[in-house]
Amino acid sequence: MKLRPAQTALMLAVVAMLSHLVSGASLKKKEEAVASIERHKVEIIALSDQVWGFAETALLEVRSAQVLADYAEKQGFAVERGVAGLPTAFVASFGQGRPVIGVLGEYDALPGLSQKAQAPKEALQAGAPGHGCGHNLLGTGALGAALAIKDLMAAGKLKGTIRFYGTPAEEAVGGKVYMARAGLFKDLDVCLNWHPSDETEAAVDGSQAIVEFIVEFSGKTAHAAADPWNGRSAVAALELFTTGLNRMREFVKPSVRMHYSILNGGDVPNVVPAYAKLWCWLRDSKGAGVQKLLAQAHKIAEGAALMAEVEAKITIQGGSWETLVNLTGEKVLYENLRWLGPVAFTPEEQEFAKEIQRATGVEPKGLDGAVRPWAAPKPDPEGGSTDVGDVSWLVPMLGLTVTTAPRDAPWHAWPTVACAGMSIGHKGLVYAAKALAATMVDLYEDPKTVQAIQAEFKEKTKDVAYKPFVPAGPPSLPKH
Amino acid sequence: MKLRPAQTALMLAVVAMLSHLVSGASLKKKEEAVASIERHKVEIIALSDQVWGFAETALLEVRSAQVLADYAEKQGFAVERGVAGLPTAFVASFGQGRPVIGVLGEYDALPGLSQKAQAPKEALQAGAPGHGCGHNLLGTGALGAALAIKDLMAAGKLKGTIRFYGTPAEEAVGGKVYMARAGLFKDLDVCLNWHPSDETEAAVDGSQAIVEFIVEFSGKTAHAAADPWNGRSAVAALELFTTGLNRMREFVKPSVRMHYSILNGGDVPNVVPAYAKLWCWLRDSKGAGVQKLLAQAHKIAEGAALMAEVEAKITIQGGSWETLVNLTGEKVLYENLRWLGPVAFTPEEQEFAKEIQRATGVEPKGLDGAVRPWAAPKPDPEGGSTDVGDVSWLVPMLGLTVTTAPRDAPWHAWPTVACAGMSIGHKGLVYAAKALAATMVDLYEDPKTVQAIQAEFKEKTKDVAYKPFVPAGPPSLPKH
Amino acid sequence: MKLRPAQTALMLAVVAMLSHLVSGASLKKKEEAVASIERHKVEIIALSDQVWGFAETALLEVRSAQVLADYAEKQGFAVERGVAGLPTAFVASFGQGRPVIGVLGEYDALPGLSQKAQAPKEALQAGAPGHGCGHNLLGTGALGAALAIKDLMAAGKLKGTIRFYGTPAEEAVGGKVYMARAGLFKDLDVCLNWHPSDETEAAVDGSQAIVEFIVEFSGKTAHAAADPWNGRSAVAALELFTTGLNRMREFVKPSVRMHYSILNGGDVPNVVPAYAKLWCWLRDSKGAGVQKLLAQAHKIAEGAALMAEVEAKITIQGGSWETLVNLTGEKVLYENLRWLGPVAFTPEEQEFAKEIQRATGVEPKGLDGAVRPWAAPKPDPEGGSTDVGDVSWLVPMLGLTVTTAPRDAPWHAWPTVACAGMSIGHKGLVYAAKALAATMVDLYEDPKTVQAIQAEFKEKTKDVAYKPFVPAGPPSLPKH
Amino acid sequence: MKLRPAQTALMLAVVAMLSHLVSGASLKKKEEAVASIERHKVEIIALSDQVWGFAETALLEVRSAQVLADYAEKQGFAVERGVAGLPTAFVASFGQGRPVIGVLGEYDALPGLSQKAQAPKEALQAGAPGHGCGHNLLGTGALGAALAIKDLMAAGKLKGTIRFYGTPAEEAVGGKVYMARAGLFKDLDVCLNWHPSDETEAAVDGSQAIVEFIVEFSGKTAHAAADPWNGRSAVAALELFTTGLNRMREFVKPSVRMHYSILNGGDVPNVVPAYAKLWCWLRDSKGAGVQKLLAQAHKIAEGAALMAEVEAKITIQGGSWETLVNLTGEKVLYENLRWLGPVAFTPEEQEFAKEIQRATGVEPKGLDGAVRPWAAPKPDPEGGSTDVGDVSWLVPMLGLTVTTAPRDAPWHAWPTVACAGMSIGHKGLVYAAKALAATMVDLYEDPKTVQAIQAEFKEKTKDVAYKPFVPAGPPSLPKH
Repeated sequence: MKLRPAQTALMLAVVAMLSHLVSGASLKKKEEAVASIERHKVEIIALSDQVWGFAETALLEVRSAQVLADYAEKQGFAVERGVAGLPTAFVASFGQGRPVIGVLGEYDALPGLSQKAQAPKEALQAGAPGHGCGHNLLGTGALGAALAIKDLMAAGKLKGTIRFYGTPAEEAVGGKVYMARAGLFKDLDVCLNWHPSDETEAAVDGSQAIVEFIVEFSGKTAHAAADPWNGRSAVAALELFTTGLNRMREFVKPSVRMHYSILNGGDVPNVVPAYAKLWCWLRDSKGAGVQKLLAQAHKIAEGAALMAEVEAKITIQGGSWETLVNLTGEKVLYENLRWLGPVAFTPEEQEFAKEIQRATGVEPKGLDGAVRPWAAPKPDPEGGSTDVGDVSWLVPMLGLTVTTAPRDAPWHAWPTVACAGMSIGHKGLVYAAKALAATMVDLYEDPKTVQAIQAEFKEKTKDVAYKPFVPAGPPSLPKH
Repeated sequence: MKLRPAQTALMLAVVAMLSHLVSGASLKKKEEAVASIERHKVEIIALSDQVWGFAETALLEVRSAQVLADYAEKQGFAVERGVAGLPTAFVASFGQGRPVIGVLGEYDALPGLSQKAQAPKEALQAGAPGHGCGHNLLGTGALGAALAIKDLMAAGKLKGTIRFYGTPAEEAVGGKVYMARAGLFKDLDVCLNWHPSDETEAAVDGSQAIVEFIVEFSGKTAHAAADPWNGRSAVAALELFTTGLNRMREFVKPSVRMHYSILNGGDVPNVVPAYAKLWCWLRDSKGAGVQKLLAQAHKIAEGAALMAEVEAKITIQGGSWETLVNLTGEKVLYENLRWLGPVAFTPEEQEFAKEIQRATGVEPKGLDGAVRPWAAPKPDPEGGSTDVGDVSWLVPMLGLTVTTAPRDAPWHAWPTVACAGMSIGHKGLVYAAKALAATMVDLYEDPKTVQAIQAEFKEKTKDVAYKPFVPAGPPSLPKH
Repeated sequence: MKLRPAQTALMLAVVAMLSHLVSGASLKKKEEAVASIERHKVEIIALSDQVWGFAETALLEVRSAQVLADYAEKQGFAVERGVAGLPTAFVASFGQGRPVIGVLGEYDALPGLSQKAQAPKEALQAGAPGHGCGHNLLGTGALGAALAIKDLMAAGKLKGTIRFYGTPAEEAVGGKVYMARAGLFKDLDVCLNWHPSDETEAAVDGSQAIVEFIVEFSGKTAHAAADPWNGRSAVAALELFTTGLNRMREFVKPSVRMHYSILNGGDVPNVVPAYAKLWCWLRDSKGAGVQKLLAQAHKIAEGAALMAEVEAKITIQGGSWETLVNLTGEKVLYENLRWLGPVAFTPEEQEFAKEIQRATGVEPKGLDGAVRPWAAPKPDPEGGSTDVGDVSWLVPMLGLTVTTAPRDAPWHAWPTVACAGMSIGHKGLVYAAKALAATMVDLYEDPKTVQAIQAEFKEKTKDVAYKPFVPAGPPSLPKH
Repeated sequence: MKLRPAQTALMLAVVAMLSHLVSGASLKKKEEAVASIERHKVEIIALSDQVWGFAETALLEVRSAQVLADYAEKQGFAVERGVAGLPTAFVASFGQGRPVIGVLGEYDALPGLSQKAQAPKEALQAGAPGHGCGHNLLGTGALGAALAIKDLMAAGKLKGTIRFYGTPAEEAVGGKVYMARAGLFKDLDVCLNWHPSDETEAAVDGSQAIVEFIVEFSGKTAHAAADPWNGRSAVAALELFTTGLNRMREFVKPSVRMHYSILNGGDVPNVVPAYAKLWCWLRDSKGAGVQKLLAQAHKIAEGAALMAEVEAKITIQGGSWETLVNLTGEKVLYENLRWLGPVAFTPEEQEFAKEIQRATGVEPKGLDGAVRPWAAPKPDPEGGSTDVGDVSWLVPMLGLTVTTAPRDAPWHAWPTVACAGMSIGHKGLVYAAKALAATMVDLYEDPKTVQAIQAEFKEKTKDVAYKPFVPAGPPSLPKH
């Protein structure tokens, strides 16, 4: 990455500005925040294990949302449930006045990834969902950070408002997008989030923009053996669509990711299928790239329909913007990581991790809990998207990743589930809570830092009008 | 079709032999059989409408089987339920001694074809099954024929045994194949069946052999955007399988039919799918052709797995032999059709049919209830298979089709469902009952005819050892 | 095949009418025609071997056309060369007045099929063309027949005109279509043709209609590794076209045949290809079916272009109508085959044939020289087309096949080439010459037969306006 | 790019070391080298235009190689032609003793890219090759640099040996790989090269590893309409291969590039094709990645063959290693670029460039002749490979790109050809000659710099045994 002059200047300014941090009164309050988290640790971990056991998928996180909201309420937060038309979304607030700082929590699982908290692959319940992205840790870790700030506020040591966002359906629908559209983030001064990972660092690379949509084809039934020539196969069109999309992979930028699931590929072979359905996700580094891909997907669907003499229909389901990185804010986060030091794992945890690495064919390097040195952002983010992206265009967003899984082990796969259900994941969530809380102490204590963060945000968004990908109205709720 | 000399000689013999039929005492009893059917007509049609309303798919025909079995029992048949390990199969018997004559009934519906009994396409219940093959008519029509024979036996006018077979799951699993393996047909002298159609004729063309199997691919999950290169996509393999199969269509004989449904094509796009599942049916005029296709399908699955670096597995689900036609028996059936004359439809029914034809883009010729003239078998059967095929290699089988739907309208589609639920279908089922009953009167009355039928059967099967396609053990029952 | 009443009546009339043939004066002249062929046999076979050696492909048959035209001229025919704008087409005429009877000759080879006149596969010259359809025999056999008639005319024993048509490019361009459009057949009373085959019979099944066209895609080049996203790949579109076409095979009638060659699929991998070219042939039993396929091919090309963001262009190259069978004429031909008896092969020839059959994995039944019994036409012709089809809609056409290759051995493949270059093929061509000549004797001698043939022709063509598939102007000549 | 500590230390050492360069006696000799190039400019540009006009593709560069070798010889170089078994390769040497410094020249064109030296796209000769990669400039620019050094040597101002390598077939076969295997580079101390581009910079990002191979399928012919089921289509297998390869694109790293040309996709549609041929190139950042892709390509070919029941064969044609970057050397080059300053284009040239940009749909920014600031290497090179890569593992390699085309215009496309034939390209080649010559003056003058370059080279190659991708023996020469 070659820094453009403007960026270089900005970084120098940031470094200068931060030199006064991590000192004096601020430091003392950070230590109290950490102590608060240590006090609540057992409860928070128990919550995480509960959510891990529920393993509820997007918009079905009824019990997961409830245990978190109940706990926040019990701890003194004012809780509003079912916000933004999402039954499993909630906001927990404490304090009053400025600054208003938010922290984001997630708790949805992924279908089909059920796994015991152990090293050989073995489903807890065959075919059931599992926390393959560690969101049980994510939600509870973020809540732990909010709780520590609340404790300091309640003790009169910090002033302002702390707000925990219970944001459902990150994996599939994008709950935050609906919450953003409902205006729930608009009065925040700064917002923070963290995500489980195989390394610990200030998240300066952002995430990809994404659009999700359904492609449906409608044809005409006929007897598949007696008179197939009287049918018009929707599944044939679907196959031509996937072939078209896959053929175009040669001609998209390396930053692009495209993937899909075939949701309906025919009922019984005996009948030429009149209906077919596919769920498709397109991603690129920027929203503009995603719009271009979407335009081509429309052409491919139309071309497939033309070939198979059926009708095609594309329905946008949702999508997220790329994450707008706030380097000023990330630097603050980074300094707090340096202050906390590495996530420390035991030899048993390292061995557990290596067993996973051996089982999944990656180098058995174990867990990497070290704080990654500050580095300039990469030209393109790694593959992956989050509805945090949408929020990041509305308020300055500070992101963090913390080690909760072995280096290089496959994500959205059983190793992540296994670690999210035992001490490795627990350590990560506690560390994340501390890092977020310590960073927030800086924000509450130092208005100039908040102003600098907001200045960068304003500069970067001055020509941008945020408009969500999702269609009007609430998302349709999945069936239990 | 060029008749081979042996066939020609056979036909001449048959024609000579049949000249004495349709005369004297036999004729009187046929008239009584027809009268019996007229008496039971209202009840039988009501049964048909019930089964049409239940619209239960393969192996789930619990209520359909029950109403038929209950009715038979009430009429005096001895009923054995749940035969051959199939909860929805039953045998209803009456009388004793030889000849033992069987008649086959079916009652399973097809998924996704729900339709009101009307001309514009409109589901009775969206997404629900429907009787797209008219099996509600089939089962009740056959039962009506058995009932007429029972009435004559009970009146002491015919001697021997009549047996009605309630055979489930024709569309998907092949109930008769399991019943055949269980030995339920082995003591029959002759067996009869009919099928709804758009024309009325003695079924001399037979049906195709078929094999049904499941193809499964097993790969490795990974995050579809972050590290897809660590995944091995089972769905990619499935797509390569279908591409391979479809590419091979250029190089199979015109008599071949191949079709499939994609049962599992991925859960959520975010995860590289580790599992995929496809249901495939392969058909040809003869079992040998089907075995050859199956061998190539194995290669295609193996090739797809090799390409995508996953594992492939093929599991045979079932299959049917081609139907062995008994020309001697068909000629007897044909003479009885001529005696009965055409199926007579009203102008309103013709208009209903034409409306369907216009709606489906075929020539609005209406219904064709005429008895088709005797014709030599075609070189290859039309596309289509039935588990009647398996029975036809165990006992001499006489088949009939009767008009229950408009000429050329798509089959396994809404028009068939619509007609099967109103007077057009009712007329066909009553006609079929009469034709089968009249033919059976000939068989009970004339041992020479039965002997001639059996002689042809023995000659044609002398070098053949029947072995069903289905794997050992009962079929796995679908979930409700 | 069920004969429709009209056809049945026609056949009965034909059989009655023909009973007087093959008798008296006519028979004597046939014997003289046969004797004439025996006299010229050595020369004709030598011509056939020359053409076999030339193995010139469509429109490049310069030497082949020349040796045939020269020989005809030497024998007294008036020869016009380069007719219809085709350098390798010619017409050789003798006699004057009515009836005017034509006989068609072909002499083009197929690319890539070079083979020695032996049983194991071995190219005479690797990669060179070969007579994989036996047209070296076809042309010389037909010329032999014309020569015999000329001899009888010259001797004052027959009256009228005999015309031999040297028709190039049957395999690829359809020379006869251009000759038809040029009006070269319009004054014929009857026309005859024969074709090499693995059986000997009057050709009552006709041939398929066909359309041939070029599909071209035009995109945009770019560096295939540096910036493929700036390119638009014409080859990707071509591949999507073939995938679309192949996917549609499930939904065409069994009578359809579709096949293609990829003529340009990119130059160097380094460059995203801006151009791609495919040659496609579509066939069905009737021209209407072919028109429907062509319409769908247009959609598939358009769909592929849409998907790949390139331009598509379809250019019709040619095509042929299905062959209109003249049953009255075929019956005359059949009677002459019966009169001639089977083609007699030696044990050595049978062994040669069996060796080929063993080498190609078909049952080693040897050669079948028997005259096949008269049989009603099949519902659909076998797969295959010929530009004879076009001529058959302009003048009554009588067709014949004669055994020149082993039963069931692959056609358009090395076995056909091998046999066409040795005694098996020679025997077939001599037999064909005799059968055609004998049939022509009937036509010259019996005006009523000609009238009956013409009556059937008029009846069958009364509602049809012949219009060739080929575009305006002469075909473009291939480069040497 | 995060620099690893070792790299950072190295860079600091390099910067220190270079501070004394570009000063004193060295500077004077650079000025003389530049003056020498100015003197020869007209001749060199004329050579470039000649080679541009020849536009000869890989291994066919007979006239191009000759004019360059002749010119070198005339200028006093000792020229050895036809080296390494390549008729169009040559080595031109001057001087004696150490250091021995080489400079690489190329002169092959690309098929199908013929273009006039003008802005709207228009072929000079339709379908002919064109210099779409600017190798006409490359070869003459490099020769110009060698000539300047020779002039200084001849004047007694520099000591050592200068060697110009005429290296053919970079685009397709990899002439340098054969020259490397023949040991032609083994006594070099340092080697230099440059490449036309749309920017001017020291080439620190290297290039991709690549393997090139031919995939052939062998099946069985049959008549495509009469009995396609007796054929085994090699083209079907080829299509399944490309489908498999294209499907795998979802599961390769973003650094991968895969592309191919279909060289034989069937002759005539009438014949099921027994042969098919494809040319495939696979690239990745490292040789290990390429080996992995090659292994999968083998599986895909095998899988396709299995599906289509044909035989597959893969033949490696060639390949290149990724370019090993020598940062020490690049820094020397960079300092000389800074000394030379930007490539200066006229307003007319800028307008020409913008016209191209508008015609190809990219932003009309014109030409960018500025020297790009020094930047750390990217994690992965841009897409692209060169046989320079192989040489870079044998001797320290210094690479340079110089602006010869408009910013962002497609490469391997008409804009590159157009600019390579007019003043824009000429300016680039003259600039490249000067930059290379000036850098070489440093190398001849300062042994410590050469030692530092060699030290880095030795460190980076200490565990690597170079082994070329190409098979034993010389490449097969293409036909004219």
